[in-house]
Amino acid sequence: MKILLAQINTIVGALEHNTRIIIETIRKARTQNIDLVVFPELTLTGYPPKDLVEKKWFVEKNVHQLEAITPETEGIGAIVGYLAPNQTAEGKGTFNSAALLCDKSISSVHHKSLLPTYDVFDEARYFDPAPSVTPALFRGKRLGISICEDIWNDQLHWGRRLYKRDPILELTEQRVDLMINISASPFTLGKRQIKHDMFSQIARRHQVPLVHTNLVGGNDSLIFDGWSNVFNEQGEIVVQARDFQEDLLLYDTDQTSGEHHPTTKETMERLYQALCLGLRDYVKKCGFKQVVIGLSGGMDSSLVAVLAVHALGRENVVGISMPARFTSELSTKDAAELTRRLGIEYRVIPIEPIFTSYLESLREHFKDKPFDVTEENIQARIRGNILMALSNKFGYLVLSTGNKSELAMGYCTLYGDMAGGLAVISDVPKTMVYELAAYVNREREIIPASVLSRPPSAELRKNQKDEDSLPPYPVLDPIIKAYVEDHKGLEDIVAMGFERSFIENIIKCIDSNEYKRHQAPPGLKVTSKAFGYGWRMPIAKGT
Amino acid sequence: MKILLAQINTIVGALEHNTRIIIETIRKARTQNIDLVVFPELTLTGYPPKDLVEKKWFVEKNVHQLEAITPETEGIGAIVGYLAPNQTAEGKGTFNSAALLCDKSISSVHHKSLLPTYDVFDEARYFDPAPSVTPALFRGKRLGISICEDIWNDQLHWGRRLYKRDPILELTEQRVDLMINISASPFTLGKRQIKHDMFSQIARRHQVPLVHTNLVGGNDSLIFDGWSNVFNEQGEIVVQARDFQEDLLLYDTDQTSGEHHPTTKETMERLYQALCLGLRDYVKKCGFKQVVIGLSGGMDSSLVAVLAVHALGRENVVGISMPARFTSELSTKDAAELTRRLGIEYRVIPIEPIFTSYLESLREHFKDKPFDVTEENIQARIRGNILMALSNKFGYLVLSTGNKSELAMGYCTLYGDMAGGLAVISDVPKTMVYELAAYVNREREIIPASVLSRPPSAELRKNQKDEDSLPPYPVLDPIIKAYVEDHKGLEDIVAMGFERSFIENIIKCIDSNEYKRHQAPPGLKVTSKAFGYGWRMPIAKGT
Repeated sequence: MKILLAQINTIVGALEHNTRIIIETIRKARTQNIDLVVFPELTLTGYPPKDLVEKKWFVEKNVHQLEAITPETEGIGAIVGYLAPNQTAEGKGTFNSAALLCDKSISSVHHKSLLPTYDVFDEARYFDPAPSVTPALFRGKRLGISICEDIWNDQLHWGRRLYKRDPILELTEQRVDLMINISASPFTLGKRQIKHDMFSQIARRHQVPLVHTNLVGGNDSLIFDGWSNVFNEQGEIVVQARDFQEDLLLYDTDQTSGEHHPTTKETMERLYQALCLGLRDYVKKCGFKQVVIGLSGGMDSSLVAVLAVHALGRENVVGISMPARFTSELSTKDAAELTRRLGIEYRVIPIEPIFTSYLESLREHFKDKPFDVTEENIQARIRGNILMALSNKFGYLVLSTGNKSELAMGYCTLYGDMAGGLAVISDVPKTMVYELAAYVNREREIIPASVLSRPPSAELRKNQKDEDSLPPYPVLDPIIKAYVEDHKGLEDIVAMGFERSFIENIIKCIDSNEYKRHQAPPGLKVTSKAFGYGWRMPIAKGT
Repeated sequence: MKILLAQINTIVGALEHNTRIIIETIRKARTQNIDLVVFPELTLTGYPPKDLVEKKWFVEKNVHQLEAITPETEGIGAIVGYLAPNQTAEGKGTFNSAALLCDKSISSVHHKSLLPTYDVFDEARYFDPAPSVTPALFRGKRLGISICEDIWNDQLHWGRRLYKRDPILELTEQRVDLMINISASPFTLGKRQIKHDMFSQIARRHQVPLVHTNLVGGNDSLIFDGWSNVFNEQGEIVVQARDFQEDLLLYDTDQTSGEHHPTTKETMERLYQALCLGLRDYVKKCGFKQVVIGLSGGMDSSLVAVLAVHALGRENVVGISMPARFTSELSTKDAAELTRRLGIEYRVIPIEPIFTSYLESLREHFKDKPFDVTEENIQARIRGNILMALSNKFGYLVLSTGNKSELAMGYCTLYGDMAGGLAVISDVPKTMVYELAAYVNREREIIPASVLSRPPSAELRKNQKDEDSLPPYPVLDPIIKAYVEDHKGLEDIVAMGFERSFIENIIKCIDSNEYKRHQAPPGLKVTSKAFGYGWRMPIAKGT
């Protein structure tokens, strides 16, 4: 049997667009004598469809689209993810389902059993779990069809399990010839190894090949990295799709090998690919073509400019330098040099006259109070206003350039440097920004060396350095990770070898800046816990 | 038996603070020969604790706090809401629970069975459902203890039920003398009648009195309105607490009547109370004392100023007028008159010089492109920057003043008039803003009559009126309600009697402004569907 793993890039909510891609892929597959095309999870709606699922008209329309695809399956099978209405009297009323289409009819429908409801996932908000699972019959074979999370509850693999049921076991106990898992599993650093080991183990344990089609593309904060593949019953990868791009991967059940594309190996390379994909798709799927970036001459904005040029092409990236009284000459020089090397449009808009006019207008109201964070923030917000004005006038999307360490500590200005449509590296800690910049410069110097060698500074007051306000990043970042990603508390972090008052202050700082993060633009998620959709903290709270 | 319904105002995350309130209340009750004190849902942690539940150290600390309360219960019982660890091998690992403390020990623990996971509720994200329910034994009586949503699945009351189980039925089938429901049920307009009818029906059907303690106070977007009460087996209210404030309500099971405080009846009065409570608690619980408001001389900002004065006292409210070239004289006059009537500090900070400096700095970059929304937004963002500067300099919280109709249509400026710590009326549609203003002026004119009579305008370009860009609000608001609150689609709304292209444009406008709402400050929720935490829409999406 010839199976095509259709690793496609859908658009959330775009039912007709996604239907067209599905139909084109099926038609193409028919010309290649494919028996079965396997699409990713919720192919029709895109993933995650979020509250669109609560709209009855949306679910109905998605059913109509499935019915429009069905006639295309003469002589071929297709597994398509969609929203299936739940007609019983209790529950949410919708399943997250896979339809097996075949010979112009819906052959069987398979609902998701395990509904991830943690971090960025809200599936219990929308879906009812499958009451039971049954293998599908297709061309004399028994297919064990599961959906994403269904495969993530293997008793042998995990310690504490999130769910009581194991739908993979339920399926294999009914004898299956082939396991098929359709997924929309987002990229995070370090996750691929976990997936590899788990898939391999499951295929081996059940002695059944595992076909796994994953979504590819960026949807808001989430980046789906593809890496669709087939594991044989020995737990080895037989065929493997390209990662971070669309791909159609052929798997012939009668062959012991096939297409095996090399995947992105090195961590920084993978992170770079992920960010470029997430950035490109967000800009495109929001209907934009060009972006504008405020270039401070520092590391973060330089890196974002490099990513944007890679993702969108240099003709679609505009860099703006906005020097003020505290901007060093080297900063402006570095920003100019970077744009020269990248070949992007570059403009200098000094903010000093505007800053002065604010100070004059506010002088009598400030009553001789000394220069403080107020005046720092005014400068940052002037820059935000200018970038937004260019966005309004020319239709650019503003990219904000803050990193995760800053966002954790609130070392950033709301409506200032935080302004923008997408926060490209807001889930990348500062130490990793350095690593990524080194990766960018691995073959030739793209980001000027002086950007990498100078101590980080916001340049919002005289001789300011990040380290005046923050611990050095190599000290800070592991603490942030412990508190934010690993859910550790004060005692656990102190036990890592720090002074109590030092950690107390950092935790207090992280906690008290929830209000800023609440109003941050969406940021691309690359770690196991990003600020944003999967981070839900009270703002007004005590300790 | 004498029962005290302790309708207290907890702070989310403030375990020690909440513990103190609980202990003080128990001590006070002991002096009054109370048998049992009933606190609201998740008393210890505050509600909603959100992702704090995922922190192991937080759950452990909450258990320690419960253990600190237990010794206080000599000769008295207390039902306290807290997070109970789930020691079994599967699931999230935490229950949303009620501990019955009595005579210095934990007499029994009762877990929540039904976990609301819709709108602003994420309980399936955090909690495991109770495997089963059993009545508690207390002083010879059988108490059917349930938690909030547990009572919201009565088969006779609802058509389609969200859950298969009905824990109230499960309890009453085991014979109970008294039903006790501890809640954290947020205020929305129209909800109280639903609760009244449902509680009454359940008490009558099971022929058992129902004791119901609800939380009071504001926590971020949510306003809890109290209204704790007891329904007798005839479904009548026997005792009733004050609404929108803390209260300790006595219920004597041997008496057929008791304290019965009148509740806020009229819709606008109730809305006014709710907004004041939400505003006051957000400001206080965030650690602020004073607020600053940009006063345009229009209806929205005038109303917010009135609410702020009521909630915080006139000495804690500062009004700022920021006129520019398009500001009418009448606007500034009305703003001044309002502040005079309210007796609040008032400052005028003209933005014309700053606006001019932006236009000059941007002139060459704008390449003679005509005046458009860019220049409108620059003005709004200057005002946002000034308010934030005053916030930074003097420690004020900025209140933003946009209404729900604007936020739906994106008729507002990100980082401009949307800037602030709390969006006070962002869930109040413009037509309801008028009603509320009329309520404010019911006895004497507080908001100047000319504010109410002039057509709404943003005054960001010459002779601008809202109706140049938007349909009249009495037409628009029902359409927004249909699409946002009632989940209706294009066809349903057209069937309400509108032209298709007219509705298509409105829906397109609502959909395309998701990016603005994503970065909006938290807003007080007063309708069944507010933008914000309970509204989760993709930003990059197709249609």
